[in-house]
Amino acid sequence: MSDSEYGEGDLRKTGMALKHDREWDYELDRIAAAVAERDAETVGLQFPEGLKRRAPAVADDLREYIEEDVRVLISGQPCYGACDLDTFLMKRTDVFVHFGHSPMKESEKIIYVPLFSNVDVLPIMERAVEEELADPEEDGDVGLVTTAQHMNRFDEMREFLEDRGYEVHTRRGDDRLTHEGQVLGCNYASAEVDADQVLYVGGGKFHPLGLAMEHPEKNVIIADPVNNVVTIADTEKFMKQRYAAVHKAMDAEKWGVIYCTKIGQGRWEQAEEILADNDDAYLITMDEVTPDRLKNFDMDAFVNTGCPRITTDDGPRFDEPMLTPGEYEIAVGNKPLDELEFDTFHGTW
Amino acid sequence: MSDSEYGEGDLRKTGMALKHDREWDYELDRIAAAVAERDAETVGLQFPEGLKRRAPAVADDLREYIEEDVRVLISGQPCYGACDLDTFLMKRTDVFVHFGHSPMKESEKIIYVPLFSNVDVLPIMERAVEEELADPEEDGDVGLVTTAQHMNRFDEMREFLEDRGYEVHTRRGDDRLTHEGQVLGCNYASAEVDADQVLYVGGGKFHPLGLAMEHPEKNVIIADPVNNVVTIADTEKFMKQRYAAVHKAMDAEKWGVIYCTKIGQGRWEQAEEILADNDDAYLITMDEVTPDRLKNFDMDAFVNTGCPRITTDDGPRFDEPMLTPGEYEIAVGNKPLDELEFDTFHGTW
Repeated sequence: MSDSEYGEGDLRKTGMALKHDREWDYELDRIAAAVAERDAETVGLQFPEGLKRRAPAVADDLREYIEEDVRVLISGQPCYGACDLDTFLMKRTDVFVHFGHSPMKESEKIIYVPLFSNVDVLPIMERAVEEELADPEEDGDVGLVTTAQHMNRFDEMREFLEDRGYEVHTRRGDDRLTHEGQVLGCNYASAEVDADQVLYVGGGKFHPLGLAMEHPEKNVIIADPVNNVVTIADTEKFMKQRYAAVHKAMDAEKWGVIYCTKIGQGRWEQAEEILADNDDAYLITMDEVTPDRLKNFDMDAFVNTGCPRITTDDGPRFDEPMLTPGEYEIAVGNKPLDELEFDTFHGTW
Repeated sequence: MSDSEYGEGDLRKTGMALKHDREWDYELDRIAAAVAERDAETVGLQFPEGLKRRAPAVADDLREYIEEDVRVLISGQPCYGACDLDTFLMKRTDVFVHFGHSPMKESEKIIYVPLFSNVDVLPIMERAVEEELADPEEDGDVGLVTTAQHMNRFDEMREFLEDRGYEVHTRRGDDRLTHEGQVLGCNYASAEVDADQVLYVGGGKFHPLGLAMEHPEKNVIIADPVNNVVTIADTEKFMKQRYAAVHKAMDAEKWGVIYCTKIGQGRWEQAEEILADNDDAYLITMDEVTPDRLKNFDMDAFVNTGCPRITTDDGPRFDEPMLTPGEYEIAVGNKPLDELEFDTFHGTW
């Protein structure tokens, strides 16, 4: 299927979309073509957590388009983002498909199937314009960002705002981002635009909170078409939680410094810096950073050089305080309290 | 230090044992020698779950014996047995140490430090002889098995029984086992001896239960020096649990077939056989097999070709029934109910 069909956003018209699930287009034709072209014996499929329940149906449908003796393998590894590539399965299958996330770095080994959402974003944008955006005559400049799932509607979003008299400012951000206007939980470079207000179209609060933390001078308006709400990103509650974790960690004697072994998350220099400076810091390497895995270590606090979302979103689930590298510097007194910032990643793996 | 020192069992006499923990000998001198010999820049340490809390102290003590610029990395991956090798850390460190398990296969890449227990096994063996073993005049043949942690006391155990008039039967088992008389949770080949009674000296009930299931003709006596109990391995309750899981899985339509990617656990042929025979079976590949990771798949039952201990010990923690490959054959009607057996692994990786 062509790019233009994606641009139109109606994925249900493609004849080879999954029969069992009209919400998403799994691009089975593209996968089947790769299987035939490479004369593949094995195909690996990796789904994000929210779509794992679709895996059997996707495998069934795919099997109708490929030779009977091609073995389909489904990844059982946790998958929440583009960093969660199942490299074991990737190396051991002839065709490897990662569903639901855009590539952090292009790779010939991997077929990325983005799984765009079919949700209509215009009604919630209409409400955002009415309720929260400045009147275009007052402030006509607006930044526009969204997540990978809604990227297929980006042109539509832009036109909608332009029709209402706004000048829409967008940029691609840095190498970590695939698309113009895309944000990741760990990268908001696409919001560095010449506008005092930024409209975030997408689900959840983590991305716009990160954005507002990273760009405190901007007003970040959330138009959430999934939960059907319009709000302003409010960093205050988030900041309070983070300061609480920092304060709790100030008494720590033994520090676990987590180095995440996932592709795209390894920040060796940051880990090294902490270790070189602190004899009571111990380097712990792991892929999944979970409370279960850390509870047996006798540490007083952890500093996570991997995914900032684990640190901030999942932080309260851990028995000990879990800080970002910047927060660690504050906790041990290397930096003043008011330098607390959102932890972001730049570049690719 | 020499083998004879291990044989004597008093590990506290070795001068370089961990200062913070007199229970175990971490063989820091052997590790330090390897670091010096290889001019290593990095040392990776992997501990079993029960000893992870010792990691900072072990790292501290080790640092006294190595150059200051050598970086010590601690594995944060889950570790319950010899299969749980952190291959990522192994490949990325100059010296890699795996504590607490005997090697399933020797490797130059890995320093195995067995961490023998210092617990005195003779008092509980005395009780086992008095209470449960047949009188030597009645049946003088006894098989003797233990786990890796008590291997240092094996000669002592043998002599103790011989002094009481028994003929002690032992064997090394197969390639999966390092030591004479050693059992693993997945391998009881060392109990295939010419004796109707087998004495298991060690902690927990899983190993002797597996042993009794694998050798139903033998009376398996448990002398547990950790919990200080003597009992007979009773397979009845275990069998009931397994039959309950099999019955529950009989209604399953969609099966998840788990292929474990850990070293020593991959049984590809068994997975392939199931898939070839069942269109409603889907292959799922993963390293850690946990309820969290499987809950998002829409399966009715799972068959685990990996570690049998996960299936049987942790089975009840999963939302859907979790079967061994043999139990699966019963559940789908390929084998009669009375062919239920304990799942074991033979050979190495």
